[in-house]
Amino acid sequence: MKSDVEISQETVMEPITKVAGKIGISEDQIEQYGQYKAKINFDPTTEKANGKLILVTSINPTAAGEGKTTVTVGLGDAFNELHKKVVLALREPSLGPVMGMKGGATGGGYAQVVPMDDINLHFTGDFDALTEANNTLAALIDNHIQHGNQLNIDPRQITWKRVMDVNDRELRQVVIGLGGRTSGVPRQDGFDITVASELMAILCLATSLPDLKQRISRMLIGYTYGRQPVTVADLHVQGALTLLLKDAIKPNLVQTIEHTPAFIHGGPFANIAHGCNSILATQAALHFGDYAITEAGFGSDLGAEKFMDIVTPRLNQRPDCVVVVATVRALKLNGGADKHELNIENLDALKQGVVNLKRHVEGMQQYGKPVVVAINKFATDTEDELAYLQNYVSNDLKVTGTIINSWAKGGKGAIDLAKDVIKACDQPAEFHELYNDEDSIEDKMTKIVTRIYGGDGIEFSAKAKTALKRIKKLGYDQLPVCMAKTQYSFTDNAKLLGAPENFKIHVSDLQLKLGAGFIVALTGKILTMPGLPTHPAALDMDIDEQGRISGLF
Amino acid sequence: MKSDVEISQETVMEPITKVAGKIGISEDQIEQYGQYKAKINFDPTTEKANGKLILVTSINPTAAGEGKTTVTVGLGDAFNELHKKVVLALREPSLGPVMGMKGGATGGGYAQVVPMDDINLHFTGDFDALTEANNTLAALIDNHIQHGNQLNIDPRQITWKRVMDVNDRELRQVVIGLGGRTSGVPRQDGFDITVASELMAILCLATSLPDLKQRISRMLIGYTYGRQPVTVADLHVQGALTLLLKDAIKPNLVQTIEHTPAFIHGGPFANIAHGCNSILATQAALHFGDYAITEAGFGSDLGAEKFMDIVTPRLNQRPDCVVVVATVRALKLNGGADKHELNIENLDALKQGVVNLKRHVEGMQQYGKPVVVAINKFATDTEDELAYLQNYVSNDLKVTGTIINSWAKGGKGAIDLAKDVIKACDQPAEFHELYNDEDSIEDKMTKIVTRIYGGDGIEFSAKAKTALKRIKKLGYDQLPVCMAKTQYSFTDNAKLLGAPENFKIHVSDLQLKLGAGFIVALTGKILTMPGLPTHPAALDMDIDEQGRISGLF
Repeated sequence: MKSDVEISQETVMEPITKVAGKIGISEDQIEQYGQYKAKINFDPTTEKANGKLILVTSINPTAAGEGKTTVTVGLGDAFNELHKKVVLALREPSLGPVMGMKGGATGGGYAQVVPMDDINLHFTGDFDALTEANNTLAALIDNHIQHGNQLNIDPRQITWKRVMDVNDRELRQVVIGLGGRTSGVPRQDGFDITVASELMAILCLATSLPDLKQRISRMLIGYTYGRQPVTVADLHVQGALTLLLKDAIKPNLVQTIEHTPAFIHGGPFANIAHGCNSILATQAALHFGDYAITEAGFGSDLGAEKFMDIVTPRLNQRPDCVVVVATVRALKLNGGADKHELNIENLDALKQGVVNLKRHVEGMQQYGKPVVVAINKFATDTEDELAYLQNYVSNDLKVTGTIINSWAKGGKGAIDLAKDVIKACDQPAEFHELYNDEDSIEDKMTKIVTRIYGGDGIEFSAKAKTALKRIKKLGYDQLPVCMAKTQYSFTDNAKLLGAPENFKIHVSDLQLKLGAGFIVALTGKILTMPGLPTHPAALDMDIDEQGRISGLF
Repeated sequence: MKSDVEISQETVMEPITKVAGKIGISEDQIEQYGQYKAKINFDPTTEKANGKLILVTSINPTAAGEGKTTVTVGLGDAFNELHKKVVLALREPSLGPVMGMKGGATGGGYAQVVPMDDINLHFTGDFDALTEANNTLAALIDNHIQHGNQLNIDPRQITWKRVMDVNDRELRQVVIGLGGRTSGVPRQDGFDITVASELMAILCLATSLPDLKQRISRMLIGYTYGRQPVTVADLHVQGALTLLLKDAIKPNLVQTIEHTPAFIHGGPFANIAHGCNSILATQAALHFGDYAITEAGFGSDLGAEKFMDIVTPRLNQRPDCVVVVATVRALKLNGGADKHELNIENLDALKQGVVNLKRHVEGMQQYGKPVVVAINKFATDTEDELAYLQNYVSNDLKVTGTIINSWAKGGKGAIDLAKDVIKACDQPAEFHELYNDEDSIEDKMTKIVTRIYGGDGIEFSAKAKTALKRIKKLGYDQLPVCMAKTQYSFTDNAKLLGAPENFKIHVSDLQLKLGAGFIVALTGKILTMPGLPTHPAALDMDIDEQGRISGLF
């Protein structure tokens, strides 16, 4: 069996200028990065979004993921097979997990975006630019304090953290500024992973370069000794930070193995951030395609909820259809099967686990748009398991449930699903908002917890209560809430699988992200800097004298 | 008067494919990064270096620099005017100082490499890739300890530091791994700037991808509790780190305002690192050009000494001519003038200061190759000052001293200098090595100090003595020495200008860089992580709605 990187390296790609040309991107809009990657100069104010929008989400996943990107890519290729003008909009992979856990973010098998090695490594440098801009700001803050602290910033109340695109638990909690008078001011601090940074969120929410700069200006970096907020505008460095992101804001174009165009741009994690690719990429996909297929991270409780509640109001477009990806494996896990035995038939566990799918489907149905289930087939699934699941989806959930096998067959493996999705997109349906700006912060969160997670409500820690009070006092209650929560459970406890009942979500802290325009609610034990596993994927990677890559999934 | 970035943005550049084509780079060797930047696939084993090599260095500079890059670029453009096939090889700018001190690393006025904004910002992502690879290694080391520490690494003896391409004094000395059992092992640590990292040195010394991997394998990351060295090969992550640098190792091609081709690749600082662009870039320049002009960082005591003693043995080529750049301003500063009054005529200070130039010229002459002085004219220099200096160079130093005015006139401002350099290149001359591999570490350093700096010898701190003992015990005395020293003085005290006598160099520590293949000697108070000034350049930078950039010099 060929590895993903082998399949990718064997692919005969089309020049990116050709891929762009097919969907009407003119040559002077293209900045090539090698022959198969490009940044696109795209202006959403003149180039309008006209296409139908399809959102791909999933159930609560296993640690290896449910092949949601594989489904998204396969679905795109199937649209292509059916001669529909389709463009994908996906997130960029983060190097942290690439070096940590096996499993790429570029699809798998014969449903991949390529060149997968470049996309999984530095790609066009967007994350590096974000890291650099983020850390330049951090240095400028501490430098301001070092040189007289005219703004009266309280070093104990700096909220701006440094970041790295590395899974580095060693940097979660640090003390910096040691070494005496000439080496800064000692203070407690911590690093986040780049994908959890506010700049990443901003890159994904900004609709233009001026909007990017506006948002950067507004970012909160801490408080004065008098507890007044200090923003980037107060430091007057929004120009420099925007300059550092002048190329990063442009969507990146690549192709699938079957030459379907794909914008890959931005990549906040969905557990600790908002989990959706950039609005500019989705708008470009909607402009250049009759259909745009986008994917939100992790289960529908995370990425999709945030797509609906945070992204779509700024995108000015709602999805026309939602695809929920389910796998027999993950449902068995949700039904109590041992994680090491997911390759073995276990109908009992599957029957127990389907409640997880049910809650995801019903959660998404509340938004009013058609929901379709994609059953992503794994080689180890048995006929009986697949038959049971398909039957459950049709007869119990009463939605279309289609088996997809794009990992093995590419676009041809998703033709049926594509037809179902196209049909769903044509159904008239009204979008229902889950909450309004005017709802209180507590109400917004309660609605998410009760209607999407299936829980009873929220509980604030003492720290979160103080934060809430401050946010209200500053008048920012109208902002939406971005929940930071484990991806494994509807609850804030990664071990409670299936569809738990009678639980509350424990909010440990609230963080004000004025540039992104939302409040992050940290729940349970969620960490914004992951660690590496016992045997990191990096240990198995290699590149030989001919440039052949191995171990990259 | 137009700013550098205005001149750059007004330049009508040639497509990079055209620039490449003119010197015989074939289309399939080019990976475009936009229309005006490219990475070049270049194989020095089959594409041989044939050109003449010119090294540009300078006297001890002012804080604003002496326009050494401006001279280098102007000289290249003058060769071009004279219909010589010339290619430049330069270092990439580091974002740390770009955001800190005004003054770019891409030349100035009408002698610039362009697009200067892109080159000064992220360029093609090489430094970002180095930062990422460096910090991924750091995370892998700490992760190894966290998960059982099979290699028995002593957390107190880890020598591998994290880096950032930011001037961030706050990170010089830190404590990491706080937060309890699941968040790493607490230990003291510190960050360096990326340009001081061993990976940067390796990128600049590697002659191929396999050589890069070999060097990475050898890198020392710390010691076991039993004081045995631990290398990257012990961790088995050389493959992953090489993979992260697979594109960074390829030289970048751009052009000057006058369309002279320039490879810009790698950028270690010359004070805290070895200060020369990559060997691959210089080899490429020597292959594609009849003349290759390269620049080494800061004064000849730093970059040029390291070019001669560390780089050229690995490059397998010696310079055919050395150009020492001098300015009236810097000589006045070296002669005791106030740094705020360098715009005012001061013949006395100039007469006092020329000893600095003398020592640089004589230092370079010891290597046996012809030395030419380039007097880089500033608008504020008076006729009398220039006449005095030119006379001093001709009659006292007895070398060719030519006034160059490329900042205002581009290549046309350097025609005389170019003619002198071409003549010098044709002189038969034998290269003399300053020291041999077999010399002891102390002897190597003593030779550098006495023959190049004009000092009496070296003095080791207690810490340096311990380090020396360990290096000898491990059998690495045959390595060359990379001096880390202030750029402002021949001594290790930034305040002792001119040509000080009767001084010793104080070595505070010795660091073993097995991948780079040298020993770094830290002298005086040199720091490997700079800080930002009171008014960082970042505060004045901006980009407007049309993408017009201001404040970037």
